[in-house]
Amino acid sequence: MSIDLMPNRYRPGEAELPQREADLIARRDAVLGASYRLQYRTPVHFVRGQGMWLYDPDDRPYLDFYNNVPSLGHCHAEVNAAMAEQAGRISANTRYLEPRLVDYAEKLVGTFPAELDRVVFTCTGSESNDLALRIARLATGGEGVIVTSYAYHGTSAAVAAVSPNLGAAVNLSPFVRMVNLPGPEHIADAQAADFFEAQVRAAITDLQRRGIGVAALLFDSIFSSDGVWIDPPGFIAGAVHAVREAGGLIIADEVQPGFGRTGAHMWGFQRHGIVPDLVTLGKPMGNGFPIGAVVGRNGPMERFGQTARYSNTFAGNTVGIACADAVLTILQRDRILDSVAAVSQRLRRGLDDIAAQMPGIRAIRNAGLFFGVDIGLDNSLPAQRRAMALDLVNTMRDNGVLISTTSANEDALKIRPPLVCQNEHADQFLAAFKSALAKVIA
Amino acid sequence: MSIDLMPNRYRPGEAELPQREADLIARRDAVLGASYRLQYRTPVHFVRGQGMWLYDPDDRPYLDFYNNVPSLGHCHAEVNAAMAEQAGRISANTRYLEPRLVDYAEKLVGTFPAELDRVVFTCTGSESNDLALRIARLATGGEGVIVTSYAYHGTSAAVAAVSPNLGAAVNLSPFVRMVNLPGPEHIADAQAADFFEAQVRAAITDLQRRGIGVAALLFDSIFSSDGVWIDPPGFIAGAVHAVREAGGLIIADEVQPGFGRTGAHMWGFQRHGIVPDLVTLGKPMGNGFPIGAVVGRNGPMERFGQTARYSNTFAGNTVGIACADAVLTILQRDRILDSVAAVSQRLRRGLDDIAAQMPGIRAIRNAGLFFGVDIGLDNSLPAQRRAMALDLVNTMRDNGVLISTTSANEDALKIRPPLVCQNEHADQFLAAFKSALAKVIA
Repeated sequence: MSIDLMPNRYRPGEAELPQREADLIARRDAVLGASYRLQYRTPVHFVRGQGMWLYDPDDRPYLDFYNNVPSLGHCHAEVNAAMAEQAGRISANTRYLEPRLVDYAEKLVGTFPAELDRVVFTCTGSESNDLALRIARLATGGEGVIVTSYAYHGTSAAVAAVSPNLGAAVNLSPFVRMVNLPGPEHIADAQAADFFEAQVRAAITDLQRRGIGVAALLFDSIFSSDGVWIDPPGFIAGAVHAVREAGGLIIADEVQPGFGRTGAHMWGFQRHGIVPDLVTLGKPMGNGFPIGAVVGRNGPMERFGQTARYSNTFAGNTVGIACADAVLTILQRDRILDSVAAVSQRLRRGLDDIAAQMPGIRAIRNAGLFFGVDIGLDNSLPAQRRAMALDLVNTMRDNGVLISTTSANEDALKIRPPLVCQNEHADQFLAAFKSALAKVIA
Repeated sequence: MSIDLMPNRYRPGEAELPQREADLIARRDAVLGASYRLQYRTPVHFVRGQGMWLYDPDDRPYLDFYNNVPSLGHCHAEVNAAMAEQAGRISANTRYLEPRLVDYAEKLVGTFPAELDRVVFTCTGSESNDLALRIARLATGGEGVIVTSYAYHGTSAAVAAVSPNLGAAVNLSPFVRMVNLPGPEHIADAQAADFFEAQVRAAITDLQRRGIGVAALLFDSIFSSDGVWIDPPGFIAGAVHAVREAGGLIIADEVQPGFGRTGAHMWGFQRHGIVPDLVTLGKPMGNGFPIGAVVGRNGPMERFGQTARYSNTFAGNTVGIACADAVLTILQRDRILDSVAAVSQRLRRGLDDIAAQMPGIRAIRNAGLFFGVDIGLDNSLPAQRRAMALDLVNTMRDNGVLISTTSANEDALKIRPPLVCQNEHADQFLAAFKSALAKVIA
């Protein structure tokens, strides 16, 4: 059975809408069309944002526990001031000398292990992953890419072709191989590393047998679209070793875990005790300004740079750099990672308590402020679990809290508030969640 | 002989640099590496911009006759105010209802022929072309793409593979076919359309014979990287007809010609009297904010949207939309196209006058404020013409005016000032150009 790949969305006729929203949706459909799916059975309509909150036209507040782009909160005054100040001074491109680009590049690279000492800027996480694949293929001479079975790495043609999460309508590359994570198969932690390595080794053997070669293992270290399968820390180390033996590079897609999401580290790969060859950045890097990057080892980066004449018009422009510089400064100065670690523990305890008191929660996984919560009653069927997760998300929305779903069966809640989430927000979320769960299981 | 694909660049040791710039370049090379080439023999270093001018750390002004991203001028107060105002209110993503996205989408589509009534936003021109290829391949079932022989369409893997301009180090797709423009072969205008159509038909026949099929003819209507071969207007119509007969789509890459660059029209394809199926936008759309789009016909756009689940995190965010909305408002309100038409005629006359008075100019081509000026003395060799163009560009730079080179032999000047260029700037440019040419031919 094929499942709806975006179950949490508006479907015409399913909900009764006020005239204002119905009119706006009709105009939107006419000019933007089918690519522009709206979240929730009854779409949300926002005209204002501040910190952890978004507001609808009637000024009703919604607590944002979903958006990981504005990781310092919506409409951050200090980031916006840096953007405005720089935009009024100069927005230089990288073919001209300009010190701020170099200052930030050094500062960014300084947050990585010493081996990763080069950076190339992009505008989006998709551009970062697309560029990383180009670099890896040039450096290795191989074409093959190994990803997890429900991975999503972006929207460009090359990256969509290694993103099985997009579903059957988007053709996969003949050169991609998918491997299963240990988590969903209920492999014991002690066997997880071996289980994962064995699959990666089988993929390598197949790619070599067909003369495709191995360019890279590409992974998001919290495996967010797979359903937030993060444990045990370090389980990918054996697979990393196998890929390197085969001449392939390791690409850590840090578009979601990067910039402190896990609380324990600035970068998700650090949780696994490995050092990748290339690291791709995006979403929270500019708190909303379109900026991304590939950070990596000198060898493959320089080889690509010398031959491929890569130039990206907007990437590294001084206004984007000013935003990214403000974000990194604030993350470090305000010790946001410590706060993420503390608040995520409070959230975790609260969810564990609810799970102990009420049915409906099958498992809770988190790395810092990225939570996957499996929903479903004992012995329920996959379709029932999916429906229950969808009900819960929409009940939360109706109660003014934003989350959504993930995982292969779309029966896990995806909970990832901005990193400035405080104890009071965690408590508000937990109260809303307990109430919504009670309603859904009633 | 292979030529340097970016002749106008800094090479270590070629110029004596002040310590301040030498230090900055050393730091830049260490962290950014070889992808980050600097323009000019002696790189320029800018810390401030305003209108048509960029300023170095000693506050020396440089007249910008090269940058087509800040098409309303550097640090435009009204665009920046729109950006800051919106950033302080909300930067919504497109999964939520927000009226400004829809308002601007309608306004943008309203500048196109009625058949082109849909838009999908992106963050860069590369993302626009990459998405257009995905849409065309899905709609046609074909893989083949026809481009001009020195075309450049962007940096993503899929788009770089159809950009012969990038040179031998970047592999072309097995599915791309290159066609020559009539201009460089000195075909008479009356034969131009037939010459071009015959090559496109041959490419179609080859793609069909190999079972690859025809997805699209992809072209930039002022053929900027080919050397600004724009005449006669309408010469591509027969080729367009042939591609449609073969089931392929027509993709107009308006990243450079779009938003009024040609003066006569908002969109470059209008100069050729055709209506494409898909149109790609980028560079000047937000006057520097990273935003692009694909505008197109309902049929292929809707088919893609319904199946491919395209979602682009930053694209269509309200801050980028606010910038683009300000740009389009100002273009229309201030009748910028009329000004482009008038100033470009003045520039053209001035260049024609110089060419009549002095040797060294072999041909002048322009569509509005995009000029290609072939440099070289009578009977000079390609390498001599290339060296002379490079000397001229660098003499201009030393005299405080920014331009660069283009064309297959890199012996044409590429001159494309911001669209707010006024008569006084044109006159300043012409005086500097005449003086530089006199020096180079002396």
